Amino acid sequence: MSTYVAVALCAISGVSCFIIGALVQQHLSFRKIKSVMVTDPYVYQCRRQIFSSLAMFGRSSEKLTTSAETGHSISGELEPGNSRGFSEGQDPGSVSTFDHFVLWGRTTAQKAISYMTLSVAQNGHPQEKLEHVAGIMKYGFPGMDDIHVYKNFVLSYDRRNRIAHWVCEHVRDECLMSRDQRTLNKPNAYIADTAIPATFSANMRDFKNTDWVGGHMASPQNYKCDSVKFLEAYKFSNIVPINRGLKNHIWFRLENYVREMALEYGSVHVYTGPMFMPQRITFRNWSVRYHVMGMNTVAVPTHFFKIIIREDRFNSELPIMEGYVVPNTYVDKDMDLRSFLSDIRDIEHFAGLKFCDGQQRDQLDLPVRAPSMSDLQND
Amino acid sequence: MSTYVAVALCAISGVSCFIIGALVQQHLSFRKIKSVMVTDPYVYQCRRQIFSSLAMFGRSSEKLTTSAETGHSISGELEPGNSRGFSEGQDPGSVSTFDHFVLWGRTTAQKAISYMTLSVAQNGHPQEKLEHVAGIMKYGFPGMDDIHVYKNFVLSYDRRNRIAHWVCEHVRDECLMSRDQRTLNKPNAYIADTAIPATFSANMRDFKNTDWVGGHMASPQNYKCDSVKFLEAYKFSNIVPINRGLKNHIWFRLENYVREMALEYGSVHVYTGPMFMPQRITFRNWSVRYHVMGMNTVAVPTHFFKIIIREDRFNSELPIMEGYVVPNTYVDKDMDLRSFLSDIRDIEHFAGLKFCDGQQRDQLDLPVRAPSMSDLQND
Repeated sequence: MSTYVAVALCAISGVSCFIIGALVQQHLSFRKIKSVMVTDPYVYQCRRQIFSSLAMFGRSSEKLTTSAETGHSISGELEPGNSRGFSEGQDPGSVSTFDHFVLWGRTTAQKAISYMTLSVAQNGHPQEKLEHVAGIMKYGFPGMDDIHVYKNFVLSYDRRNRIAHWVCEHVRDECLMSRDQRTLNKPNAYIADTAIPATFSANMRDFKNTDWVGGHMASPQNYKCDSVKFLEAYKFSNIVPINRGLKNHIWFRLENYVREMALEYGSVHVYTGPMFMPQRITFRNWSVRYHVMGMNTVAVPTHFFKIIIREDRFNSELPIMEGYVVPNTYVDKDMDLRSFLSDIRDIEHFAGLKFCDGQQRDQLDLPVRAPSMSDLQND
Repeated sequence: MSTYVAVALCAISGVSCFIIGALVQQHLSFRKIKSVMVTDPYVYQCRRQIFSSLAMFGRSSEKLTTSAETGHSISGELEPGNSRGFSEGQDPGSVSTFDHFVLWGRTTAQKAISYMTLSVAQNGHPQEKLEHVAGIMKYGFPGMDDIHVYKNFVLSYDRRNRIAHWVCEHVRDECLMSRDQRTLNKPNAYIADTAIPATFSANMRDFKNTDWVGGHMASPQNYKCDSVKFLEAYKFSNIVPINRGLKNHIWFRLENYVREMALEYGSVHVYTGPMFMPQRITFRNWSVRYHVMGMNTVAVPTHFFKIIIREDRFNSELPIMEGYVVPNTYVDKDMDLRSFLSDIRDIEHFAGLKFCDGQQRDQLDLPVRAPSMSDLQND
């Protein structure tokens, strides 16, 4: 064998191993970032910047391909269900034939690497877990303040007011139809949340001798299928001071309505949160006024909002949003739920939140469906 | 040359190129993430998770070394100045001799790669720019809500109240001592901030016919050295409704005091923000009440806080914090600034913020230095 052939072989093996090394490193980084994303909402929110930084060899010419590919893999792996109108998939018009070839080559290579490295990094999460944050937050984060991830909901905490900014749930019919075999014991007191510093958290003493009781933002009744998830809804971060009469009637009926919709349509995404609405004092003179309770000065909201986003399991049309605003006082228990229907832009204005990431709102501003009358019969 | 030698050479070149490829990919990812970090505070805040995910080959056995190394490189490259007590450097006790060797080998390799790849990825930012977010936010983010990065300050925006949660500046003496040659024209109206949606932003009409004027959280007087930075302090996100009498006297003196400290100690970090304090209505009955202005319902805070963290340029002792709370009403202009000194824990409690990342507070809770009397003579 001549020296030239040996040198050529060395060069070929060197170049190919160089590329394989870079791909392996990139693939493992991708996988680890994705496994971090399962529990860390901030990393999840930054995923575009991070993934484009991980683009192979950092060359900007490959950026387009990579971002299209990662976008595709996100929508494919992390956003299950009917994601038309929300999928971040690639636009075929913007990718050239060469890019397609590169894409195919890289996908094949990454599959091979994925197979090879299964033994190296076995801390990859199973597919179901990868969906966790992405599945609940399919319609985006309304705000980015102090986000906490729980088993069945994601919550943004308002440390100034000691209550949540918003709570987002993904209510599924599977969980509503089954029931945990173990007895679901309602705890005597709400559970302290260790993720939130004690100075910024409410406690049971704050609720003593007040006109309000603790209400759940994410209803524990949605999670009777699993006693762990059920108990999680009793954490203090999910509790907000609510008028007793409101909690037992109108708010309870609104929660029942959400469960009905989930049973009818397969799954609904629900955003729930407090609002602090201004009152008119004199002409051109408005002010916000709300009570605070106990040593921790827990804020008592003046109103609550609930936004329900439903999508049909069998019909992949655009999702439909409904917004409700309920005042935090005693409300006549026979009132029609439809009278609390509210423009989502008003909720956004007063709560300072942005639903559905803002951009896609035009597609979603369809006329809302009036709640069925069946919720009155359930009373 | 025998076939065996050729095969061995191929194998060696393959393995070494594999490692080099992985290192090159890792290095470029690191560099790109760092350049994203310059402007994106969320990526900056997630840097630990991201860097540990980029650890070479993803093996957990190298995690310790890598996190120590990246921690070191962060404190070395991104946190200039006297960072004792805040440096994230490695603890020599926790790194074995072998780890040291690996560390040295990787540092050398990365230096070589850095030299090699300078021509490949030339979008690396110069050293000075890399310090931007890290330099201003040396003492951590008090909260993570809707953060915006400007040339001279970092700001967390409260979309519900249409004012900032907090503004953090790094006031340096260089900028205070020089003055831009161009004329610094105070704009007639505050500048709209395109980074904040118009629905969540105040405008000039909101301030018309009200009892309050616009006050700056980050004072434009701190940035007379650069007309661009000077104008940036006139953006609406930096403006908050303030009592005219307070703005012209006590607040102005407090800002002067900050500049004096910056001139004396080289640089100070300043956090400024609004507070909404509860008032007692009856026994055990407290409530928060504040005015809102105009169509955008811009909140008028009841108080303002200012926290000054100073560190001596020539003396690397622990930094010293001072907290001031000023009510948003007319205050007798001859009052001593020291009477507004306040416990930082109280500011944290009512503003819902956490300064100095919480952990290091024990080291910082030194008795505060009383403001010098010279600020009275400047009046």
